[in-house]
Amino acid sequence: MASRVGRYTIKLESCPAVKGYAGVAGKKEGEGPLAEAFDYIYEDDTCGEKTWEKAESRMQKDTLTRALVKANITPTTVDMVFAGDLLNQCIGSNYGLREFGIPFIGLFGACSTMAESIALASLAVDTGCANVAAAITSSHFCAAERQFRYPLEYGGQRTPTAQWTVTGSGAAIIAKEGDGPFIKEVTFGKIVDMGIKDMNNMGAAMAPAAAETIKSYFDDTGLDPDSFDLIITGDLGFIGSRLTSELLEKENIKLKNFTDCGILIYDRKAQDVHAGGSGCGCSALVMCTHIFNNMRAGNFKEVLFVGTGALMSPTSVQQGESIPSIAHLVHISSTK
Amino acid sequence: MASRVGRYTIKLESCPAVKGYAGVAGKKEGEGPLAEAFDYIYEDDTCGEKTWEKAESRMQKDTLTRALVKANITPTTVDMVFAGDLLNQCIGSNYGLREFGIPFIGLFGACSTMAESIALASLAVDTGCANVAAAITSSHFCAAERQFRYPLEYGGQRTPTAQWTVTGSGAAIIAKEGDGPFIKEVTFGKIVDMGIKDMNNMGAAMAPAAAETIKSYFDDTGLDPDSFDLIITGDLGFIGSRLTSELLEKENIKLKNFTDCGILIYDRKAQDVHAGGSGCGCSALVMCTHIFNNMRAGNFKEVLFVGTGALMSPTSVQQGESIPSIAHLVHISSTK
Repeated sequence: MASRVGRYTIKLESCPAVKGYAGVAGKKEGEGPLAEAFDYIYEDDTCGEKTWEKAESRMQKDTLTRALVKANITPTTVDMVFAGDLLNQCIGSNYGLREFGIPFIGLFGACSTMAESIALASLAVDTGCANVAAAITSSHFCAAERQFRYPLEYGGQRTPTAQWTVTGSGAAIIAKEGDGPFIKEVTFGKIVDMGIKDMNNMGAAMAPAAAETIKSYFDDTGLDPDSFDLIITGDLGFIGSRLTSELLEKENIKLKNFTDCGILIYDRKAQDVHAGGSGCGCSALVMCTHIFNNMRAGNFKEVLFVGTGALMSPTSVQQGESIPSIAHLVHISSTK
Repeated sequence: MASRVGRYTIKLESCPAVKGYAGVAGKKEGEGPLAEAFDYIYEDDTCGEKTWEKAESRMQKDTLTRALVKANITPTTVDMVFAGDLLNQCIGSNYGLREFGIPFIGLFGACSTMAESIALASLAVDTGCANVAAAITSSHFCAAERQFRYPLEYGGQRTPTAQWTVTGSGAAIIAKEGDGPFIKEVTFGKIVDMGIKDMNNMGAAMAPAAAETIKSYFDDTGLDPDSFDLIITGDLGFIGSRLTSELLEKENIKLKNFTDCGILIYDRKAQDVHAGGSGCGCSALVMCTHIFNNMRAGNFKEVLFVGTGALMSPTSVQQGESIPSIAHLVHISSTK
């Protein structure tokens, strides 16, 4: 049974378990520093499909299948799947998950989707709405580029603040019991818009949302950064992470053991990704492989995962709007 | 505390209340048969904004404001808002709700969004995740036409099976206590894809999803259509509703007192809407004005609201994909 803590945080009394998880990656991500942790690396970014969008759906299908196998359950035992992605009308999820026959709750949280979906799936299990729930999202560099920016063939120059959309997907199966890690608290964020209009500097747009949600969580719980051996955002990249630290320092919160999924996923020098990785698939892939593996191994015990999303569209930006952002937080522990 | 009933249905033990609700409408909707029930009718479909997309955001802002006033609460007492819409990256909601400072859970359920958001908001309240939660969505004819079909200026011919996207928005405030109506059960649907590829016949694409969720609900609860004085889908229109009845008859379920939000909202003969209304705003507006008013007045006692959504995008259709659909069900009662 969930209970509210302070103004924004919800405590999950039963501490639902991540019973199984998986992450699949594109070719570039498979050449990066976390490659060993990935469940599968595609030979090329078509994933054997005819279009980039179908490739993204294929990744969700493959990821959920692998997570179910690792959780040792069939789709018929999953009561709900919470999913969304960056593509218009979330077609990555809609087409990727249509064959599973699992009640489907569609989300749109941009790059915060993995935190949003894990939070909702965990609450569903904690409160008895579901015995087993799944959380999944994805992104695909080529599908995102042509939808949000330019056709790949155009060869547009990327700015130094630009992040690289991860080709990848991650899924977590949440249940009452399992090997973990375990979900202890969640904090849903408010929409924050500080007036940033540069579509090539998402990190700066999202940093204030991350800082606000982290502050809300510490205010609500009375905890501080010392209580955590990892605070990980996704996906602020190098610029957004630094801004988040600076914003929180002004609030007398000094982050430690702090990193970002978009920093971890690529080798910055060797892979030419400018400000780091981004996209729903970035934090999904990093959390559902590298981080959860390390939590099960006891290398991280108390983790704050803060998923961040930029809630704009090309249309809203063309109409002169700034970029509203959001951050959802999940406190994950290696023990119940 | 929620509990599962059968395979797909969740019973809300506390029967959360619709504490307040509101619906705002475009000019055409304001000339239709339900106009008297609407809280506000805009003089024209710009809603005083410079673009159709900004107009849609404006509608969400105005609708939530009105619903909060009618519930006699301020935004700071709302713990979560569940919202989404049809625009790419759900900008109707993201920009419409950014000023409220309410923790925001973004959804994508296409035209099923009002059922999805009411279901999730009600579960949040029932399980103690929220004391008060809001559900809201919208659609705008002009914004939807240019995004999904043709520029308005092109003057494309509409087929007889085409539905007319409603310009409107509806919001419901869900709380532990209130005048009602009250939410008793919810059934989240699975993605159903029967291979329909005609973007101008959404009713046919969505009917199998509606039939499947309705059948699941009756199977789970042991109830039948006799238990309800209204079964209302949104938004199947004339064609999809008839198909849903036919599909359920094959399963020996004979719907009665059955209608559709897309049938009610326009005068079919006088308003030239072909197969009826559609869009997230259609069921949001009809439920959060006409239906809830009549439930409070005691004219409907037990209502099944089945929100239906077509989960495709123009990109997926252009790539030869069929149209996956979904339906979420909410059992609403005039008494606790």
